Amino acid sequence: MKPIVQCVPNISEGRDLDAINYITEVLKNQPGFKLISVEPDKDYHRSVITLIGDPEAMIEPLIKFYGRVLEKIDMNKHKGEHPRMGAVDVCPFIPIADVTIEDCVSYAKKLADRVSTLYQIPVFLYAKAAQSEDRTNLPDIRKGEFEGMREKLQDPKWTPDFGPSVMHDTFGVTAIGARIPLIAYNIDLGSDDEKAARFIARAIRQSSGGFAYIQAGPVFLEERGHVQVTMNILDYKKNPMYRIFETVRMEAKRYQIEVTGSEVVGLIPKEALLDSMKYYLKVEQKKFDPEMSMDDLVELSITYLKLRDFEPKKIIEANL
Amino acid sequence: MKPIVQCVPNISEGRDLDAINYITEVLKNQPGFKLISVEPDKDYHRSVITLIGDPEAMIEPLIKFYGRVLEKIDMNKHKGEHPRMGAVDVCPFIPIADVTIEDCVSYAKKLADRVSTLYQIPVFLYAKAAQSEDRTNLPDIRKGEFEGMREKLQDPKWTPDFGPSVMHDTFGVTAIGARIPLIAYNIDLGSDDEKAARFIARAIRQSSGGFAYIQAGPVFLEERGHVQVTMNILDYKKNPMYRIFETVRMEAKRYQIEVTGSEVVGLIPKEALLDSMKYYLKVEQKKFDPEMSMDDLVELSITYLKLRDFEPKKIIEANL
Repeated sequence: MKPIVQCVPNISEGRDLDAINYITEVLKNQPGFKLISVEPDKDYHRSVITLIGDPEAMIEPLIKFYGRVLEKIDMNKHKGEHPRMGAVDVCPFIPIADVTIEDCVSYAKKLADRVSTLYQIPVFLYAKAAQSEDRTNLPDIRKGEFEGMREKLQDPKWTPDFGPSVMHDTFGVTAIGARIPLIAYNIDLGSDDEKAARFIARAIRQSSGGFAYIQAGPVFLEERGHVQVTMNILDYKKNPMYRIFETVRMEAKRYQIEVTGSEVVGLIPKEALLDSMKYYLKVEQKKFDPEMSMDDLVELSITYLKLRDFEPKKIIEANL
Repeated sequence: MKPIVQCVPNISEGRDLDAINYITEVLKNQPGFKLISVEPDKDYHRSVITLIGDPEAMIEPLIKFYGRVLEKIDMNKHKGEHPRMGAVDVCPFIPIADVTIEDCVSYAKKLADRVSTLYQIPVFLYAKAAQSEDRTNLPDIRKGEFEGMREKLQDPKWTPDFGPSVMHDTFGVTAIGARIPLIAYNIDLGSDDEKAARFIARAIRQSSGGFAYIQAGPVFLEERGHVQVTMNILDYKKNPMYRIFETVRMEAKRYQIEVTGSEVVGLIPKEALLDSMKYYLKVEQKKFDPEMSMDDLVELSITYLKLRDFEPKKIIEANL
């Protein structure tokens, strides 16, 4: 079997659809892997791109993709709700089948080497590909963001792993890495109260005493007119979605705020949804069938987690 | 002002009330501090003793107390639901007023020195009094329990901080330390399902992905005929009681189990209760008065957290 990985580059452009199309064109209809989705977000001013397939086949198209991003995105003009340090802000390889996390580290290094040499872009290796402990956590690398990166790189502690040790003027820097699947999950609050969203984010995130393996923050979605608790679930086996969803709902009650929906950005492992549906079905004393169809799983997830814009192809396994 | 500390020795005897009376007699009616409570638990086979007052005045009576424990408790015969490594399993000093945590470390060392010399009991300094990182966490020191302590002490890594480096035959070893106030909190489940209690404990405790600052485990209370999630809330400012209580309630639903009550072992800071009452009153859109009387606070806490055996003198501030 050929190895199957997921690769999820995030670019700092979520508004200009022509530019996004031009950039992602080089990832379409390529042999060996599929371009599963391109998810632009206007408020975040960021797009999440998902590829699945043979990592060897992805490398050359990804190099072209970095080239097109370099052409189209000038970080000096970028302003959005999501923290970012570069035009391709982050590009992780995630093992799916017949591949180890160590293999993914190798693909990350290969891409980092090529991209840094060809375009003179500084690259940080992060997560499982990190070369030192203090580069494991992406937010630590990204701290200071694009605007602070020029100065940050002058500190020998932050010499990039590949490429020049000065920031690229328009691109900034990029992080390439390998990690286990995480779930990028956002919970919608029926309110525009940013203070409430901040309090709730603090209640659930590890860094302020909440759940382990959860990174979370508040965000106001101007386009949609409400606040959201945006999060990464770093280990969905340790912290299932239902637990976070219900805890957010419980905390929101003190503000008389309803949880109005939630969304998964990028893909989600089937197991994560099954695990949460098991909770809700058991609560309601209904039969839980672990072999249920993808369509049933999607329907239940929309019912219980109020998932919006959700369809079978958001589930990793539906794309294999 | 004289310094005020709380001192909370835990002894491995929760059944023989005559023995407990004999042991605690030396702490009664002493100048400078009060014996606030003695809480024996038959299932845990353990008693939690709470003193409040001037730490200087506590030292001599505590030495006598260790002597009486040595007389009465033989750990070779001890079997209970709570992990333990010695007859006085643990003895922490906790700053309350006009005293620093560093002062409490000094009192801990003073007591450790005296007790180890007089009775030939090995002493580990723990929490803020720990002399190395790996002795900060009490469960790490206690691992192996009384039965495994003789062998554990042969490892140079576990040479006691005071006293002989061989275990006392009947007493075992003791941990003396200094720490900020924690809340020993137990939530009752209306069920005898230990598997469910274990699952729920795992869902809330830090070590398996739950909330930071929470240590928790399952326990079956034979006397009462139900299971309980027993926990330490290590930082109640980061993880308020209501959050834990409601999360346990949410997780219990999948087993169709009700949360039937909860209990605070030892004392609790007033602020911790106020903070949780604020949540419940805000949820119900009722007025929250931070200056409410102790009696009102107790009544509300019994209503919302289903606290049992709760009275004003369980609140630290009511004893000052």
